[in-house]
Amino acid sequence: MHRTHTCGELRIEHVGQEVTLSGWVQRSRELGGMTFIDLRDRYGLTQLAFNMETRAELCAKARELGREFVIKVTGNVIERSSKNTNIPTGEIEIDVTAMEVLNASKVPPFTIEDDTDGGDDLRMKYRYLDLRRRPVMSKLQLRHRLSIETRNYLDSIDFMEVETPFLIKSTPEGARDFVVPSRVHPGQFYALPQSPQTFKQLLMVSGYDKYYQIVKCFRDEDLRADRQPEFTQIDCEMAFVEQEDILNTFEGMVRHLFKVVKGIDVPAFPRMTYAEAMATYGSDKPDIRFDMKFVDMAPVTQNKGFKVFDDAEAVIGIVAEGCADYSRKQLDALTDFVKRPQIGAKGLVHCKVNTDGTFKSSVDKFFSQEDQQAWAAHAGAKEGDLILMLSGDLNTTRKQMNELRLHMGKELGFRDPEVFRPLWVVDFPLLEWDEETERYHAMHHPFTSPKPEHMAILETDPGAVNANAYDMVINGVEIGGGSIRIHDRDIQSRMFDLLGFTKEEAQAQFGFLMSAFEYGAPPHGGIALGFDRLCSLFGGSDTIRDFIAFPKNNAARDVMIDAPAPIDGAQMEELYLESTAKEKE
Amino acid sequence: MHRTHTCGELRIEHVGQEVTLSGWVQRSRELGGMTFIDLRDRYGLTQLAFNMETRAELCAKARELGREFVIKVTGNVIERSSKNTNIPTGEIEIDVTAMEVLNASKVPPFTIEDDTDGGDDLRMKYRYLDLRRRPVMSKLQLRHRLSIETRNYLDSIDFMEVETPFLIKSTPEGARDFVVPSRVHPGQFYALPQSPQTFKQLLMVSGYDKYYQIVKCFRDEDLRADRQPEFTQIDCEMAFVEQEDILNTFEGMVRHLFKVVKGIDVPAFPRMTYAEAMATYGSDKPDIRFDMKFVDMAPVTQNKGFKVFDDAEAVIGIVAEGCADYSRKQLDALTDFVKRPQIGAKGLVHCKVNTDGTFKSSVDKFFSQEDQQAWAAHAGAKEGDLILMLSGDLNTTRKQMNELRLHMGKELGFRDPEVFRPLWVVDFPLLEWDEETERYHAMHHPFTSPKPEHMAILETDPGAVNANAYDMVINGVEIGGGSIRIHDRDIQSRMFDLLGFTKEEAQAQFGFLMSAFEYGAPPHGGIALGFDRLCSLFGGSDTIRDFIAFPKNNAARDVMIDAPAPIDGAQMEELYLESTAKEKE
Repeated sequence: MHRTHTCGELRIEHVGQEVTLSGWVQRSRELGGMTFIDLRDRYGLTQLAFNMETRAELCAKARELGREFVIKVTGNVIERSSKNTNIPTGEIEIDVTAMEVLNASKVPPFTIEDDTDGGDDLRMKYRYLDLRRRPVMSKLQLRHRLSIETRNYLDSIDFMEVETPFLIKSTPEGARDFVVPSRVHPGQFYALPQSPQTFKQLLMVSGYDKYYQIVKCFRDEDLRADRQPEFTQIDCEMAFVEQEDILNTFEGMVRHLFKVVKGIDVPAFPRMTYAEAMATYGSDKPDIRFDMKFVDMAPVTQNKGFKVFDDAEAVIGIVAEGCADYSRKQLDALTDFVKRPQIGAKGLVHCKVNTDGTFKSSVDKFFSQEDQQAWAAHAGAKEGDLILMLSGDLNTTRKQMNELRLHMGKELGFRDPEVFRPLWVVDFPLLEWDEETERYHAMHHPFTSPKPEHMAILETDPGAVNANAYDMVINGVEIGGGSIRIHDRDIQSRMFDLLGFTKEEAQAQFGFLMSAFEYGAPPHGGIALGFDRLCSLFGGSDTIRDFIAFPKNNAARDVMIDAPAPIDGAQMEELYLESTAKEKE
Repeated sequence: MHRTHTCGELRIEHVGQEVTLSGWVQRSRELGGMTFIDLRDRYGLTQLAFNMETRAELCAKARELGREFVIKVTGNVIERSSKNTNIPTGEIEIDVTAMEVLNASKVPPFTIEDDTDGGDDLRMKYRYLDLRRRPVMSKLQLRHRLSIETRNYLDSIDFMEVETPFLIKSTPEGARDFVVPSRVHPGQFYALPQSPQTFKQLLMVSGYDKYYQIVKCFRDEDLRADRQPEFTQIDCEMAFVEQEDILNTFEGMVRHLFKVVKGIDVPAFPRMTYAEAMATYGSDKPDIRFDMKFVDMAPVTQNKGFKVFDDAEAVIGIVAEGCADYSRKQLDALTDFVKRPQIGAKGLVHCKVNTDGTFKSSVDKFFSQEDQQAWAAHAGAKEGDLILMLSGDLNTTRKQMNELRLHMGKELGFRDPEVFRPLWVVDFPLLEWDEETERYHAMHHPFTSPKPEHMAILETDPGAVNANAYDMVINGVEIGGGSIRIHDRDIQSRMFDLLGFTKEEAQAQFGFLMSAFEYGAPPHGGIALGFDRLCSLFGGSDTIRDFIAFPKNNAARDVMIDAPAPIDGAQMEELYLESTAKEKE
């Protein structure tokens, strides 16, 4: 037997018991004739005491232990003379009477402490050591808790988890698939699913009524920071529902998770149309932890002779409360911020609403004190506030102002990671025009249903058609999205037409789904939540990678196991494949 | 709103309420001026009543509905005049006042009833219709229940679910990997995991202490009946444990599952060594629902002049209780059974222990009544029993007798699928000799630890070394297996040597694991249970395919979506691949 208790378990009431513990040497120190070792396991730390006077040999052995050695000790629980109130086991220590070294350890390449000296690359290579660190472990424990609570909540309201296949068929629509060559069927490939979309819809056709799955999905995209080629979704679908049913169900789920996992009551989720979100926040994933809403400043800024504004399609302002005292340096920094190539504004106009009733703007040449007073009134700025304005074409200016608003929100401390303000963004456009391919793409995916009231203009004015689509947004992050699906074969067929599929392509790729729609498909809809993202949100972090046990790096490589890697020639031959890699590299 | 209640919900106490239901038309019948429709959803059936006299138009519309049409009805719950006690909603029906057809249905290619007229291939192609059938749906509901209960049990005893990666590295050891070509790294491949083995061991090195995952695994094997290229495991690992700890933990889990999912108290799992299982049942997965243990008949049958027995390495007998009255035809059938090529025995010797005290055997020429009396005494056969004997070399005879024993067990009704008799088979050999490659293979896998008392003969007599390995067997089916792992770098290295790995191969494939063992690896061990198999066992079925929502056929093909399939040339080019398929086919 390796232990009677864990390293997080012993308390003052265990004093007098003989116990056996196993764990890792976290820290060791000598103090007079004593050696103290902090023994660590997943559950906590327990102090071990070795006495040179009474057990010289054992104590000498203990002094030879290095960090991260794995040991097993037996001893008596005694009350500590100097207690540590920071840890639950801090009132006791173990007077060790016997010790066994279960395994030695080389000196780790970085320190296994809450704050480590290891760089990113080193910690990725030795991920199994990084995983020992308490902050990393607690992130994965949070992930486990969230997955258990999600499943139990959905189970409690009659959802069934159904496993859908991983070896499916490649579809050219959307992102790139990872493919898997078949050995049994020469020249043919499976694809790994980007989502279980069609399968969950089939389950609705099959009458499963409420489906969920916490499931890995795969996308062979050029990686941006914090994208992973494999990621996890909470994937859900319901039959006989309308949009409101889905919103209420998953709002309920997420509020339940906040309650049981973080002890937080989050407010009911407001619903905001896509159009409103874009007009008010310049983003379809607004961070509503703070206000600072967009104000259309055109009516009070144009036709006063300032060409920049006069020529602009849009002049958008925000009010930064209490920032009238911003220094020149601070204002210059804001201008530099919006002029960065990633944002690309040409300049930033500000107007200080001073506490003495005067106004001071960067365009005083063009606008009188009265003009600026009108701005303040129009924007709802009080004395002591700062108005910031950007102008240009509407879409670009919205995007730029969104960035500036988020930046200001951060500077002003409005983006507390422990405050959560979810909302639903609804009424998304069905399609978006792609300049490059000169055709419409599905904004959500080809299975999303148009608003019934827009069916009449589906072919005549496709860009104006809204969809029964919705996103769950929390703190400026899109946590999930979904839609009410098409369940009518003819509408699905019209949709494929609109998206530029030939009849043959539609049949080859989605024939099984359209065929299923002919045998009594119920109305249905669903949602998929990004589970990695949800975990990072709950963990108060921006990086999903921290919440994945064995993540890939930005080049989609696992540097710990060194994958991907070449395979041998015989294996290639079995798969009827030849590599052209050498010629092309 | 599509419904106020489900089709399984309404009872006599709802009478008088106006309700809305949605579902599928299961069956329709006319009776006098009435039309009755059974409306089906996942939750049950509810009878709808349409009255030609009072609502002629509606009733006429109802008469036009075909099977599997999806409809929504509103009406009043009324008490039925002729009640159906077979279904929970059988006391009421809906007096329908309004109906909407939500979707029509073509005539399904097979009937959607408990007993269907659809053949296997047709049901696979239209899997989404087969999934509607109640027996299929209940199997997937059982699967869901088992997964939820498994997770909650493991969570309750501090196990953490950790997701391990799907895009890993190919290893030539064991079964064939499915591989995934990398677009970003030309000429390189990921592999899909056959199991998360090395990752779960790394999690133990990382101090995660108790890990589990219900996870898809992949094996590119030539398919036998009832093997799937993708399958699901309950994968578990624990640190600071010995074999007994693991056996007790997972025996506890499975007994819990039997209790909560099936309401059955299964007895404690006996432990049987591999050697004992082979000697007593001729199998390492004995079905102990019935006795009929092997008896070594050599001492009482050899050296009596019957050459077949005299020349045999082994003469093995079983006693079929109460079968002395088997007819010639029945005995011939048994002989035919053992002579089938899959079993391959040359013949079967029987001996009837008649109720009148006489004996009648197929080898009366060679053995006297006294000889046969000695057999009966030796084998513990009573009057009225039948002794069956096979002979030949030991291993072959054991295998043959195992088949015969199982066959007799079935014939005699001892293999009731609703009786469960689990056991642990322990002390497996570490290695098995492979005649073909003329080297040792790991019987379990290369990470399994040898028994400490056998370490000394590891290199000198490898075939005699036993492992800390164990299988969970229920009703003759191997439900899971595991081992205490090697956690010492040097022993792991000796193991790779034994298995014929060069140092370079071991380093290239498992260097990360051996490196991890140098940084304080704790003693650890684990188990993996076949989840598909567990589901089928709980469901009283032999075929795992029934418990998988979208299974592949025996050619590893999904005939519903038609995968695998060719991919287009551009995609091949992006992956730096050329197909040689056409030349080779």
